[in-house]
Amino acid sequence: MKLASPEVLPIDGFRFAGLAAGIKANGRPDLALAVADAACSAAGLFTTNLVRAAPVTVAEARVLGGRARAVLANSGCANACTGAPGLEATLASTRAVARALGAPDAEVLPASTGVIGALLASSKIEAHAAALVSALSRDGAAAFAEAILTTDRGPKVASLRGEIAGRPFHVLGIAKGAGMIHPAMAPAAPHATMLAFLFTDAAAPPRALARALALAADATFHTATVDGDTSTNDTLLALASGRAADASRGDDEPATALVDAFTSVSDLLARAIVSDGEGAEHLAEIVVRGLASDADARVVARTVATSSLVKTALFGRDPNWGRLLAAAGRAGVAFDPARARIAIEGIGIVEQGVAVGPDAEARARAILERPSYTVELTLGDGPGRARYLTCDLGLGYVRCNADYRS
Amino acid sequence: MKLASPEVLPIDGFRFAGLAAGIKANGRPDLALAVADAACSAAGLFTTNLVRAAPVTVAEARVLGGRARAVLANSGCANACTGAPGLEATLASTRAVARALGAPDAEVLPASTGVIGALLASSKIEAHAAALVSALSRDGAAAFAEAILTTDRGPKVASLRGEIAGRPFHVLGIAKGAGMIHPAMAPAAPHATMLAFLFTDAAAPPRALARALALAADATFHTATVDGDTSTNDTLLALASGRAADASRGDDEPATALVDAFTSVSDLLARAIVSDGEGAEHLAEIVVRGLASDADARVVARTVATSSLVKTALFGRDPNWGRLLAAAGRAGVAFDPARARIAIEGIGIVEQGVAVGPDAEARARAILERPSYTVELTLGDGPGRARYLTCDLGLGYVRCNADYRS
Repeated sequence: MKLASPEVLPIDGFRFAGLAAGIKANGRPDLALAVADAACSAAGLFTTNLVRAAPVTVAEARVLGGRARAVLANSGCANACTGAPGLEATLASTRAVARALGAPDAEVLPASTGVIGALLASSKIEAHAAALVSALSRDGAAAFAEAILTTDRGPKVASLRGEIAGRPFHVLGIAKGAGMIHPAMAPAAPHATMLAFLFTDAAAPPRALARALALAADATFHTATVDGDTSTNDTLLALASGRAADASRGDDEPATALVDAFTSVSDLLARAIVSDGEGAEHLAEIVVRGLASDADARVVARTVATSSLVKTALFGRDPNWGRLLAAAGRAGVAFDPARARIAIEGIGIVEQGVAVGPDAEARARAILERPSYTVELTLGDGPGRARYLTCDLGLGYVRCNADYRS
Repeated sequence: MKLASPEVLPIDGFRFAGLAAGIKANGRPDLALAVADAACSAAGLFTTNLVRAAPVTVAEARVLGGRARAVLANSGCANACTGAPGLEATLASTRAVARALGAPDAEVLPASTGVIGALLASSKIEAHAAALVSALSRDGAAAFAEAILTTDRGPKVASLRGEIAGRPFHVLGIAKGAGMIHPAMAPAAPHATMLAFLFTDAAAPPRALARALALAADATFHTATVDGDTSTNDTLLALASGRAADASRGDDEPATALVDAFTSVSDLLARAIVSDGEGAEHLAEIVVRGLASDADARVVARTVATSSLVKTALFGRDPNWGRLLAAAGRAGVAFDPARARIAIEGIGIVEQGVAVGPDAEARARAILERPSYTVELTLGDGPGRARYLTCDLGLGYVRCNADYRS
């Protein structure tokens, strides 16, 4: 498997476009379209938040059929909590693009991100539908990626090449963050407005594709957090054009190579999202091991990863292991604190539940200057293990979110 | 019932003192002592964090007997995660004070707050034990309150006078915050290092006193949060000197008047703690109603009260109802978002799940300038109701916690 980021590998069977339709007040690109050459296999995961934006409701209903032609995504407006007019706006937007493509409405999957409560101005999308379709191109992924950003500092794209029985296939992933990020999507479960789209030229029937997507999300997006807030709009979609290798084992099971490829691309995207969390300066991978089960370890990892005191300490480059251990201790999972070991990039700062000493902490403090690092809590000798990606909570996060609507 | 804050009512049977023992590097007061004239009825609640400081272990074991003579509290060092030497330091500290008082060691209840991982310098307490006892006075509550502070901006004291069958009694409460505040204490359950002490001249046997304390804590401290992080050191103690009215109904049940008095004083202290949360500028009371049960309402209220996006919006004086509704929606509790109503101090900003409009939001924005206000979410017409006290998350919180150990 070859990772090819930031270079974007061509994915046979798809074209992409992005442009500014005037949805964002600042005039930046805000409308993105991905189109398969023909209707193809599709699968999706959507936010588990009870409050769900109109595009989530529509995309979820449409992807149930297992086939799609296009993904229409906008930034600048989440179209959430907008009632019946919001639903109409989403339907009108996808209808306009479907007509421009000559496809049925039901084959266009919508996704939106931006402020909650503002109604999507579908007239702007209708007015730009033809231009958007005209702009589609094989190398338009960068324009697509740019047009879905909100508080992100930059686009998030990853691609790789896999092989099945000597035949190659490719996966391209495009995502955006950067706040309300704690994906909990069903059928499995993520958070934020995270939007993420995986395109592959492999062949996989819808159920096999959905299975690969769920497995990949569970190992990546579902163990990633920026601020612990699961969005009303989280959407993860996969489309498979079927031009390259067959990546399924029957209707229901994906090939391992497809799961691996989806997981690798999703991991890159999840890391890009958390690294670019609102105001974040550091990506921290919290690894918890030694507990009774993976599920227990995941609860502890999530509690540590979402602790405000842990996250502000990381912002302060402070190897404040007391906060790490205290967060683990309130997770509701049994372990013996007197046996705890904590290490930062392999530098032990706690052994048997007590401090190793100032020298170790000074070395750990130097590590915490880095843009990314691992924080490892070993809490016993059980087999349970989990990881969570998080970022520091700094002044930039507060500035971003105190001013976001103003 | 008469509230008498900031004036402190005299509580018959107790003396207080506070001084600087050199535990804090900055030389401010850091050692506090409260002493009953004779061993008296006592009860306590302690953190549910699996990681528990030495003073928590010792105080919990000692208060089980239901009698105590004194509370010895220090700031500047939590004495948590300090292993066997930490336990020895706590025991040596209480032993020194017990000797100076001429009381058994087991009647001195310790409590500590400060940085986790540093060993308590018991020699400093031993060296100041005699001076501390000499400084005890009937009107020393202010000195006690000052000496337990850490990141607090000021002391937290509340007192009131109650009456039972024509006989008066008094309750004095003293507490400290200001971070790692999300009390979850057993037998019921609090967080932070919150330390809070209730002194009353009423008579109540230990089990009745414990019951009154648990009921009061559940209605107040256990629905209060600053940062969602439950501390390793949370301690809530009550001592009853028995000089005034009998406030029990048999061995196990407290008089309603005692529960009410404990609850009122605890509510004042909880509000003081959250108002003075690290960097906080606003106290927000999140009220959730209309759900199937109080327990459901409490889960939603807690989810909203601990949401970083909600708290940063409050810092920004932004009536960002989308974040309020999104937080409620991810709480895992069933409700119909399309029926939601949200009001800030009675000003409706969401009706039937959608925005009321910019005028209402402008009026709500003006309310959010105030030091305290109520945010009310009505999510149906069920009987379930709960409230949670929280504060905004601002630049001050990040500065406080990024620099805390440095």
